[in-house]
Amino acid sequence: MEPDTKRAPVDKGADFANYFCTYGFLYHQKEMLSDRVRMEAYHSAIFRNARHFRGKVVLDVGTGSGILAVWAAQAGAKKVYAVETTDMANQARKVAEGNNVACTVEVIQASIEDVTLPEKVDIIISEWMGYFLLRESMFDSVIIARDRWLKPGGAMYPSHARMFLAPMRSALADQKMQEFQHSMADWDRFVLDTREQFGVDMSCLAKSYEEEQKKYYLQTSLWNSLYPNQLLGAAAVIKEIDCLTATVNDISTVDADFSIPLYEGVNRVSGYSGWFDVHFRGSPAAPADSEVQLDTAPSLDETTHWGQQVFLMHPPLRARGGDVLAGKIQMTRSKDNHRLMDVKLTNAVERGGRPLSHPVTALFYIE
Amino acid sequence: MEPDTKRAPVDKGADFANYFCTYGFLYHQKEMLSDRVRMEAYHSAIFRNARHFRGKVVLDVGTGSGILAVWAAQAGAKKVYAVETTDMANQARKVAEGNNVACTVEVIQASIEDVTLPEKVDIIISEWMGYFLLRESMFDSVIIARDRWLKPGGAMYPSHARMFLAPMRSALADQKMQEFQHSMADWDRFVLDTREQFGVDMSCLAKSYEEEQKKYYLQTSLWNSLYPNQLLGAAAVIKEIDCLTATVNDISTVDADFSIPLYEGVNRVSGYSGWFDVHFRGSPAAPADSEVQLDTAPSLDETTHWGQQVFLMHPPLRARGGDVLAGKIQMTRSKDNHRLMDVKLTNAVERGGRPLSHPVTALFYIE
Ligand SMILES: Nc1ncnc2c1ncn2[C@@H]1O[C@H](CSCC[C@H](N)C(=O)O)[C@@H](O)[C@H]1O
Ligand SMILES: Nc1ncnc2c1ncn2[C@@H]1O[C@H](CSCC[C@H](N)C(=O)O)[C@@H](O)[C@H]1O
Repeated sequence: MEPDTKRAPVDKGADFANYFCTYGFLYHQKEMLSDRVRMEAYHSAIFRNARHFRGKVVLDVGTGSGILAVWAAQAGAKKVYAVETTDMANQARKVAEGNNVACTVEVIQASIEDVTLPEKVDIIISEWMGYFLLRESMFDSVIIARDRWLKPGGAMYPSHARMFLAPMRSALADQKMQEFQHSMADWDRFVLDTREQFGVDMSCLAKSYEEEQKKYYLQTSLWNSLYPNQLLGAAAVIKEIDCLTATVNDISTVDADFSIPLYEGVNRVSGYSGWFDVHFRGSPAAPADSEVQLDTAPSLDETTHWGQQVFLMHPPLRARGGDVLAGKIQMTRSKDNHRLMDVKLTNAVERGGRPLSHPVTALFYIE
Repeated sequence: MEPDTKRAPVDKGADFANYFCTYGFLYHQKEMLSDRVRMEAYHSAIFRNARHFRGKVVLDVGTGSGILAVWAAQAGAKKVYAVETTDMANQARKVAEGNNVACTVEVIQASIEDVTLPEKVDIIISEWMGYFLLRESMFDSVIIARDRWLKPGGAMYPSHARMFLAPMRSALADQKMQEFQHSMADWDRFVLDTREQFGVDMSCLAKSYEEEQKKYYLQTSLWNSLYPNQLLGAAAVIKEIDCLTATVNDISTVDADFSIPLYEGVNRVSGYSGWFDVHFRGSPAAPADSEVQLDTAPSLDETTHWGQQVFLMHPPLRARGGDVLAGKIQMTRSKDNHRLMDVKLTNAVERGGRPLSHPVTALFYIE
């Protein structure tokens, strides 16, 4: 049974308010256009494989400012359908005109789910990746585009994606715990004041308040741009996606075991960090002349706007170099918003092949 | 003709995502409950007029944590219907129980627009005021409640509201202008980089980007907590609302002329500041024993979470003590979101009864 058939249909008004509306701002598009790692990867993927674009029909899913569509046209595409649902479509049209490719690039303002193209396409290009790859669930839309509009033997740009998880240390762990404790101390003062000055006892809400604050301070996964030396073990691959064949079912959950030996010198693990990479390998029928990779791992010189996703365990894990962190990560979509994620992390420290204690489970929300 | 009949119906999903969802957090309710000025005003309004509550049926529109409903019960109400649309209703129920008034306070989780009460009520109490009084447009819901459920001769708590506007000075004006200019300098660098490194000319978007940034930095009305000495003239009343009789039409626009002499010593006016007060006077049939006022004007000792709404003119106005600022403020609801406001401010400096220059108009958005 398809799990997605059980879901309530997406409320379009809420989806626009929560998700699409930010893409309607040039400011936000500019942030993506200023991400050099991202830009260089797509640019190289297209121009180093210009041979594959020459004379071809291309679909850009979510064209935003139009950048990928313009590049595809410059690389020699015969026709580029550039689909964008927000009013940013008007700007993409200007960019196509301003760069003299308006005869090749046809900007269509619509949700890709509602579009009817006059022909099938040779290549689908799209920058659909959200934080920790799957946040935003935009790849769903790319799948729809692919299944409806990609010719047999056509290529996906990017063609593959992977997700990684690694143990890490971070001063954020103590900081968040302190913020949480301050917030609860403030709550206690509030209850006293409200009782004394206004004659109402709010203590009956203490448990709910604590849960709410815990969720906010301790269970909300954080965006962070990590230094490589914050990682405490080699990253485990927790998901691999073939963009040519993946179904919505394949990508709507992540469920992976990991077993990661800790580096020498470690004595405490704050939690985990997650990131992704994508690859441009062309297609089996038309392999890339030059494979390109877009990597969002912690890096000293090249950071991306995606940063890394951080999951802090409270309390931190006591473990040392050579110990193995054995666990499981399960990610599902939030019940209230299919573009957000719930993450369940279970882990235990193993030394000499045996667990030092019972496994611990923590829940996180990617908001 | 009713202007509201021309409007598209409100999208409920978007309205929840944009508006109601914040009220579902205890953190947000606690902020309101920690606003001493607000709390003392409602507390006094109820308990100094306990005689009017004794044995009466009360409706609390948007009960949130339940505070006003519990007070009404403590003051002797026979029955309190406490209506709240978000899940905060569950917390209100706990607060009623925890304060031993669950037999009087009936919490109903519903939008007030959808509620059917078993009887009409003697008093409607509600804390419906948003920034600059009308942001959030929640008084619409109170009007519906009043027209459907208030007995003839019943009372509204609060009973009256007023809006004020005064000229002001603020260092924010120069700061915002600088931020805007930095942002545009950054844009120029971005256009150069994108052309040189990625072969795409984005200069065709300069005008749109400038408009977007202008709107963000210069035309977005700001929340601020002002010192009284930042005001440069006596405040003008720009709206008066009688909560017992006002219609949605009456409150969906503000349109007022003002003419404000500047205090001695002034040489520059940064813009305008707006705020409101509300009054608890009971009703004509049952006037309050003790009138209470909730004032959100700039104040040295007592600030509220509403602060003041700030409208900065760019460039600032050159004017001096004794000059008169003559102008007009027009506020309408945003086309895209009926809970947000568009403000048009037209003004000119008059000296000795004659305008020093043509009137200047500025548009602002209350987001
Ligand atoms: N279902 C859908 N239909 C059409 N556009 C979509 C979509 N889902 C997301 N988008 C758009 O896809 C864009 C993703 S951001 C990437 C923008 C651009 N391709 C670039 O690389 O710079 C956003 O502008 C968003 O509004
Ligand atoms: N149409 C409507 N129906 C029911 N509740 C509404 C409503 N419009 C707004 N509300 C609720 O009204 C509350 C306003 S905030 C005031 C809360 C509380 N009365 C107090 O004074 O502390 C919010 O909790 C909001 O969710």
